[in-house]
Amino acid sequence: MEEPELRRRFASSPVARLATVRPDGRPHIVPVVFALVENMIFTAVDAKPKRTTRLQRLANIEHEPRCSLLVDHYENDWSKLWWVRADGEAAVVEPAEAGKGLSALVARHAQYRQTALSGPLLGIRILQWSGWSAESSEEF
Amino acid sequence: MEEPELRRRFASSPVARLATVRPDGRPHIVPVVFALVENMIFTAVDAKPKRTTRLQRLANIEHEPRCSLLVDHYENDWSKLWWVRADGEAAVVEPAEAGKGLSALVARHAQYRQTALSGPLLGIRILQWSGWSAESSEEF
Repeated sequence: MEEPELRRRFASSPVARLATVRPDGRPHIVPVVFALVENMIFTAVDAKPKRTTRLQRLANIEHEPRCSLLVDHYENDWSKLWWVRADGEAAVVEPAEAGKGLSALVARHAQYRQTALSGPLLGIRILQWSGWSAESSEEF
Repeated sequence: MEEPELRRRFASSPVARLATVRPDGRPHIVPVVFALVENMIFTAVDAKPKRTTRLQRLANIEHEPRCSLLVDHYENDWSKLWWVRADGEAAVVEPAEAGKGLSALVARHAQYRQTALSGPLLGIRILQWSGWSAESSEEF
């Protein structure tokens, strides 16, 4: 798979899984909705009631910005399995620069028209695409 | 959600995402099929052709056994979203002790009756369950 195909498959899913590293060195993983814009993946912490632990991802990236996002496709026919991963560096986007990411999230996810996007916007700068497809049994 | 409900939801998915930490400190994430048996999650590296990078997860857990597994449920109605996470410690199961885990994987995934399970078996000892459900907007 070339990069355009990796990007197409990644963007075909409404949800990805974001892996970060906790300050104590353990991995942390949460599902996120996202928007892929050029070389960036944007994801937001929405306005639903949050407890401190829901912001674990923010504490993590402050300590270790390197992160990994995965989209995978499962079906019972294992010859159809595939996954795509984007490795990059995350940072909280300054409010003055958040317009493009927020617009892309709202354009992609109609649900954000009902749920206020009041939380911080995360921007992940993609440094590497990788992926695997059972059909070709190759890793990219 | 109490632990039995977290376990039930986790086990309802054929696939989970395994997050580990690379020796260089970056997070790594791959989809895995698994079997949940008591306090253990078993997952195998199957017999499909592998390139060195496909064993990244094994190099990672040798260096840092602490890992995290996620199952999440997505649908367009965001009031139905939920996820369950199992944090634990991973180790390669010695062949002499792998019977229970391999049996559970084959019993759960009929596909393993066609695909030889010749690779190493990973056993993750679960140390903590956590989860979140949009219906209750609470984290557990």
